[in-house]
Amino acid sequence: MYLIQHNRLREIGIKIFEQLGASKEEAEIVANHLVESNLVGHDSHGVVRIPEYVGRIIGKPILKIEAPPIKLKAKIKVIRETPTTALIDGDWGFGQVVARRAMEIAIKKAKDYQVGLVAARNCDHVGRAGEFPLMASEQDMIGALFVKTVPVMAPVGGRGRVIGNNPISIAIPANDGKPILLDFAMSVAAGGKIIMAIEKGENIPEGWIIDSEGNPSTNPKDYINGGALLPFARHKGYALSVIVEVLGGILSGVGALADYKGINTFLAMAIDIEAFIPLKEFKEKVDKLIRDIKSAQRIGVEEILLPGEPELKTKERRIKEGIPIPEKTWNDIVEIARKLKVKI
Amino acid sequence: MYLIQHNRLREIGIKIFEQLGASKEEAEIVANHLVESNLVGHDSHGVVRIPEYVGRIIGKPILKIEAPPIKLKAKIKVIRETPTTALIDGDWGFGQVVARRAMEIAIKKAKDYQVGLVAARNCDHVGRAGEFPLMASEQDMIGALFVKTVPVMAPVGGRGRVIGNNPISIAIPANDGKPILLDFAMSVAAGGKIIMAIEKGENIPEGWIIDSEGNPSTNPKDYINGGALLPFARHKGYALSVIVEVLGGILSGVGALADYKGINTFLAMAIDIEAFIPLKEFKEKVDKLIRDIKSAQRIGVEEILLPGEPELKTKERRIKEGIPIPEKTWNDIVEIARKLKVKI
Repeated sequence: MYLIQHNRLREIGIKIFEQLGASKEEAEIVANHLVESNLVGHDSHGVVRIPEYVGRIIGKPILKIEAPPIKLKAKIKVIRETPTTALIDGDWGFGQVVARRAMEIAIKKAKDYQVGLVAARNCDHVGRAGEFPLMASEQDMIGALFVKTVPVMAPVGGRGRVIGNNPISIAIPANDGKPILLDFAMSVAAGGKIIMAIEKGENIPEGWIIDSEGNPSTNPKDYINGGALLPFARHKGYALSVIVEVLGGILSGVGALADYKGINTFLAMAIDIEAFIPLKEFKEKVDKLIRDIKSAQRIGVEEILLPGEPELKTKERRIKEGIPIPEKTWNDIVEIARKLKVKI
Repeated sequence: MYLIQHNRLREIGIKIFEQLGASKEEAEIVANHLVESNLVGHDSHGVVRIPEYVGRIIGKPILKIEAPPIKLKAKIKVIRETPTTALIDGDWGFGQVVARRAMEIAIKKAKDYQVGLVAARNCDHVGRAGEFPLMASEQDMIGALFVKTVPVMAPVGGRGRVIGNNPISIAIPANDGKPILLDFAMSVAAGGKIIMAIEKGENIPEGWIIDSEGNPSTNPKDYINGGALLPFARHKGYALSVIVEVLGGILSGVGALADYKGINTFLAMAIDIEAFIPLKEFKEKVDKLIRDIKSAQRIGVEEILLPGEPELKTKERRIKEGIPIPEKTWNDIVEIARKLKVKI
């Protein structure tokens, strides 16, 4: 494990994507996104993705996903629009670039008409969903993102990879500059955790996956051999994921479940708080909510944390100490940089 | 257990509320709501609530909740409005009446401006959240409701009744007239199930509640003696419930957690599908989603069901066979009718 400064990682990322032909804006958005994911501790969505993205740009994808390559200097188009809504076509560009554009449009619409809803199709991996609602909370709005992903989860009562493990994220602004951030997907355990268990040769707890026959399994290899993730809280995770298939998949015009080529489609939302109550009052009430939860009686923890707070604490620490990067990830990045003649 | 025809139950309910001074519209909305809840199998939100509502109308509440009595012939007022949003004051009327009005306004706004968002405060118990988004799906829109309730749940890492077990509901229209309906609250098990275990003298599974000291408990009495419900999937149920405190509680201007007098405040939403894609295409894609999920390989079930489908099946059966009503509930209703000189 290496400890790498976030600025250094970011610069390497930007140079790699620019060298491949990405615009400066694209390279910055994607590198920022990956490094920010590392900073908040979501390493599965961090710079470990660089080799995968590079593969998808040069048409040599590492993962077998039925989707066109990532298009650089993509031309995002609005293909249907009303004062409060838009449907955009991402031209198969970076998902992060398309999601930022979608959220920008939603925020603009919410400024003018109190609510903005933007659906998007034809883009690559949007990455960590939590980044985008935060764009709204930074503008003192409520932001939300509903992301449709490739099917990896079984429905309740069924087996096989039928439904996406679809993430949702909602951000709420607070006075102290630390927004409340919900950011989760619908399975009991993330697919990345199961892959990690395979790499470590460890078993996983019962209840995470079923095997190809639909039996409970603690062998993580059963997941990649025709098994599937299980939804959290059974019917609740299942129901929420089905809803996101519709909000994130069908509203974009592409379709649900396995009915589309690509990695993600999504719906972005922004809500103007002052349509309801004055912003000052809203923030005071959110701060009181935070204080009241934090002052509850604790059991076995030093501090009760709000949703999104563990990530902010990790970020503070990693900005100071650097980001821990596994040797393999670092070597992969160095190798890519070498091949592209990028100084690192 | 008696089997009572739904029409008979509905008429009794209407007469009781009218006799107490409710308007015809109020009486019909509330009685319809309670009987519909029984029909779909959510008996905890059915006619068992009549004694509680009657108590809250006549100022002799059964439950100790810090809230004014239910006001009859309440005058719902819009106190802040934009083309896409409204904040309404329910004048402490029946929650169901206020929620229907809110959803009507949201639908009207979505017809004119593609999205409608209506927050509401000062109302009584809204009942089963699922009823209201269905008003939107019946109009070929997507509907959602986020309801803030009284605190009964512990935050992750804490104990005590800090957060509401806040229900959310989202409805999606489908071609076959059977909408997809998400309708759930944020605890592992509903408070009603724990009360039922107390009545039956049974233990409950570990993981449903903690006692007043924050220890896991299988004794349901620990719940009413200072214990609390636990959120589903730990951080996920906790995060979603905190978000609903904001959407359902703070946006209405009242506040979060224990910071308000009353039972429910909420946010209603309606989204115009045709803002994104043609309705026909949307419904075809939703129907395909339903068919594809249903045709997945089954494990241990006769049929894979979509969210909301178990309720529709129960409704079909109970319309034919009658609604099973426990003797105590029936006797309570008969006694109320007798006192009010209502023929049943």
